[in-house]
Amino acid sequence: MEATLDPLYPLRHSLAHVLAQAVLQIRPKAKLAFGPPIDTGCYYDFDLETPLTPEDFKTIEKAMRKIIGQRQPFVASKRSAAEAVEHLKGRGEQYKVEYCLELAERGETEIGFYTNGPFEDMCAGPHLNHTGEIPPDCFAIDSLAGAYWRGDEKNKQLTRIYVLAFNNKDELKAYTEKRELARERDHRKLGKELELFILSDVVGPGLPLWTPNGTAIREALETFAKEQEARYGYVRVATPHIAKENLYYTSGHLPYYKDSMFPPMELKGECNYYLKAMNCPHHHMIFGHRPRSYRELPLRYAEYGTVYRYEDSGSLSGLLRVRSIAQNDAHIYCTLEQVKDELKATFNMTLDYYRMFRFDNIKVRFSTHDPANKEKFVDNPELWKFSEQIVKEVVDELQVDHILGVGEAAFYGPKLDFQATTMLGREESISTTQLDFASPNNFDLTYIADDGKSRRPYIIHRAPLGAHERFIAFLIEHFGGAFPTWMAPIQARIIPVNNDVLPYAQRLEGILRSNLMRVELDQSDNSFNKKIREAVTRKIPNMVIIGHKEAEESTITLRRYCAKEQATMSLDTFVERMKRAVSNRIMDNFADVDV
Amino acid sequence: MEATLDPLYPLRHSLAHVLAQAVLQIRPKAKLAFGPPIDTGCYYDFDLETPLTPEDFKTIEKAMRKIIGQRQPFVASKRSAAEAVEHLKGRGEQYKVEYCLELAERGETEIGFYTNGPFEDMCAGPHLNHTGEIPPDCFAIDSLAGAYWRGDEKNKQLTRIYVLAFNNKDELKAYTEKRELARERDHRKLGKELELFILSDVVGPGLPLWTPNGTAIREALETFAKEQEARYGYVRVATPHIAKENLYYTSGHLPYYKDSMFPPMELKGECNYYLKAMNCPHHHMIFGHRPRSYRELPLRYAEYGTVYRYEDSGSLSGLLRVRSIAQNDAHIYCTLEQVKDELKATFNMTLDYYRMFRFDNIKVRFSTHDPANKEKFVDNPELWKFSEQIVKEVVDELQVDHILGVGEAAFYGPKLDFQATTMLGREESISTTQLDFASPNNFDLTYIADDGKSRRPYIIHRAPLGAHERFIAFLIEHFGGAFPTWMAPIQARIIPVNNDVLPYAQRLEGILRSNLMRVELDQSDNSFNKKIREAVTRKIPNMVIIGHKEAEESTITLRRYCAKEQATMSLDTFVERMKRAVSNRIMDNFADVDV
Repeated sequence: MEATLDPLYPLRHSLAHVLAQAVLQIRPKAKLAFGPPIDTGCYYDFDLETPLTPEDFKTIEKAMRKIIGQRQPFVASKRSAAEAVEHLKGRGEQYKVEYCLELAERGETEIGFYTNGPFEDMCAGPHLNHTGEIPPDCFAIDSLAGAYWRGDEKNKQLTRIYVLAFNNKDELKAYTEKRELARERDHRKLGKELELFILSDVVGPGLPLWTPNGTAIREALETFAKEQEARYGYVRVATPHIAKENLYYTSGHLPYYKDSMFPPMELKGECNYYLKAMNCPHHHMIFGHRPRSYRELPLRYAEYGTVYRYEDSGSLSGLLRVRSIAQNDAHIYCTLEQVKDELKATFNMTLDYYRMFRFDNIKVRFSTHDPANKEKFVDNPELWKFSEQIVKEVVDELQVDHILGVGEAAFYGPKLDFQATTMLGREESISTTQLDFASPNNFDLTYIADDGKSRRPYIIHRAPLGAHERFIAFLIEHFGGAFPTWMAPIQARIIPVNNDVLPYAQRLEGILRSNLMRVELDQSDNSFNKKIREAVTRKIPNMVIIGHKEAEESTITLRRYCAKEQATMSLDTFVERMKRAVSNRIMDNFADVDV
Repeated sequence: MEATLDPLYPLRHSLAHVLAQAVLQIRPKAKLAFGPPIDTGCYYDFDLETPLTPEDFKTIEKAMRKIIGQRQPFVASKRSAAEAVEHLKGRGEQYKVEYCLELAERGETEIGFYTNGPFEDMCAGPHLNHTGEIPPDCFAIDSLAGAYWRGDEKNKQLTRIYVLAFNNKDELKAYTEKRELARERDHRKLGKELELFILSDVVGPGLPLWTPNGTAIREALETFAKEQEARYGYVRVATPHIAKENLYYTSGHLPYYKDSMFPPMELKGECNYYLKAMNCPHHHMIFGHRPRSYRELPLRYAEYGTVYRYEDSGSLSGLLRVRSIAQNDAHIYCTLEQVKDELKATFNMTLDYYRMFRFDNIKVRFSTHDPANKEKFVDNPELWKFSEQIVKEVVDELQVDHILGVGEAAFYGPKLDFQATTMLGREESISTTQLDFASPNNFDLTYIADDGKSRRPYIIHRAPLGAHERFIAFLIEHFGGAFPTWMAPIQARIIPVNNDVLPYAQRLEGILRSNLMRVELDQSDNSFNKKIREAVTRKIPNMVIIGHKEAEESTITLRRYCAKEQATMSLDTFVERMKRAVSNRIMDNFADVDV
């Protein structure tokens, strides 16, 4: 029953009492359980003889507004624990009795009560002065739910009534609209509607199967990231998804990280093999397979490597928490002198991506180690001090607003995480950059410096786009499923006005396909309007309308998903426009982008 | 001691006797073991008191030629088994005694002997008429090796002398030259020299780690295959590398294929998970996740999916036999009426690839089932007859020369394999096309036909480029490591004549890199000639020479790896030429290709 320090707490708490009073008016025999304020308002749990339905909401809300109009003062009182139990027993409030006995057992001698009007509740406050301080249009009953007493499914199931409550009507409206948008854009909902991915219990939980539509998005993103990385001087590697057990003892992941890894495969006559939960040990093996010179550094190994992490099946959620993770991974091996420049370049690359996709609300978290926690972090105070100082200099020199997360570093070094807020308001890490001074020791990685001496490189782990699964979940919600042409599963749908123009439509389809466009020709018997509606439902960015005039004049009429205008242009102009949209990665899913 | 029906058998067999006679001249106490003809000549195993060295080869060869000059007749004789044992004992030939006793135990009553000149050997023949029938320059002693008596390492180690022998001097020369070429082009040797991949015992046998150079080749090939598949109307999917055990019981791979799969991961509270050994079950799950209409067919799902197969560690070999296999995989779901066209299109796509890479010596093997073997093949005579007939019609209509492999089909249907010959002369399957009528039943896959009825689709499994591992092994040997510009790990190396021209060289490097070329600038202190030599050693297709004249006139001088000419051209011309080489996938590693 602990509440946050939200200034709305007393209002929401008071509203819960008003709700209970109103429910008792229509269900006088209802027994009360808990009724706390929450982030979006409050709820109250009732044990009812006759169930409530959403049809009762209006009646209850009306009763609540009447109670508010009565300006009932909230009056605090106290009883000794023993008196309180007797008092509640007398009123038949069996749930309150149980909780009161528990409080007494914990040693509480005085129990608080609050009265407003005819209603009394065991309660520690605080409350408003009187019910009239609640703006009558700041709240709305939201929903009914079943809830077990004390959250234990062995107990009786109670009826929970959720109430949304904010400072005023506008805030309430803003919240419900945002929530509606979030529901519409939920990547699980859109993922199904637009056929982007499948979660199959036959294959296994948390192991998404990417359908052709989702794979098109994945590959568009991957190709783009590969090109960016090539421009930033990365080279690519490809490593197997498994390795011998000992590799992970060398890296330090075993035994510490064992619970997050899939169980081993026991190869008779050989040893245990593990599915990789991270790409770094494989990359270190490539770096270390022959002597390296300072002339080769920095060496930037990139791989879209799929790693596997065991997550409890209960914690899996759509694409946001999965067991198979296709990471936009890279490891940079560099000299001490190069660390800062490499961190800055990584930081800028990450921000470039976010600007391009128009993410706002990005927060940077600088995570350092906790010197007191010797178990969670490599025990090397000097290197910790030094590496944290380097990262600090980088954020200072780039003037990055950031939150400090003491004790949240990786076990091998400090890190910079980028956090975004989902449509549902949850903050999630989408990318990470980590400085690693421990792995070079573990793997005995060295290079020959310009003075001929053998030195340890530093390693930067970075994943600006995080994992495909999580990043695409973000993009689905961020774009509401309406992807720009270069990422869209179907980049154009050709809509012939009737069958006479099919030959021309087919020619256009062929031209687009030979230019590697993902294009569909609607050959159904549907009416023109239905064809348009269907293309809109699929959120296809370009609807290419072909009528007699277009066929005669070698033109097309383009209707875009994200814009109001409709324009007729020559076939060549259109093909060039499509090619430019793809090769320049134009974000033409934003209505303000002129293409 | 079984020999093939090679017409060279008597010559090689006779030569083994000549070899033994010659060795006895310089090692009179040598005891003889076995001395059979083999595919490339013959060998003989000796138990020697004083070892032989390659320095003795000349002496032995000279003695052999002398024996040949003597035209010693080969004379056959027979002894009873008992007499033979006594005879060999008397001559102290302990190994022959042991084998003779074994023959007697097997029930052989008469033992054959052959004499030529002073030499006698227990032997069943056949031989030439006399040693003079051996052309004196048709053979050469090749090498020495250790070999255990009867191949059992508990026995004594003997000295084996290998002799190469062919019909004449020219054939001998052709063979040794081809073998030398094969050794130079061996993908394991070139893989190391050109740093294409690493096999690490720490990660595990048969699990190649692709270095940046090898990954560049992989990705060039992958991007090309993806574009081809897009043009052929394929769509792409992406599926996890693991699945629940039951999926493989549904597919029929468990329990039958279990020995070829990695052992399971036992997930507590859930079930066993397996690493996938094939992509098909995952693809079938995508096809089957919702109802399908005939309008959607053919549906062609492609994935470069990495599968894992357990191969005995002893059978692993470079990239040709591995445990992690990145397959150029696809599954085509189609109606009965579409099967033939789809098979033909697949066949043509495969041949297009091979023509482009200039593979010759490709053989097609049409594998059918064996009606007698009910255990190895799905028991459905009608569907077997029908599917084999379809495939037969396809090869007939396309007029494809093929070998018939009865009993070599997949368990679910007939297949067409393409086989190529490696540089070492071994025939290997590089791609497969299979018609599958069983999986649609196993997975209960259906579509709604145009008459509204539910029907089973047919499935074609196809992988024209096979696996990256095997296909790239082929290409390495086929190209001798000299890849065309579009595939080359380093597409161009810029070689400045001296440091004065570095700024211009760097500008060129920047231009090429911004065009996504893999380019290196040689900034070493090496002499110009050494710089060229190094680029040649790395088999870099384009050496871009920058001198003062080039810097002043904004030109470059291009020296190609695979051509003799050297040409000066404007910087723009060169950049365009490089872009064209990549986008058009020009096979400019063949000297006759004009670019």
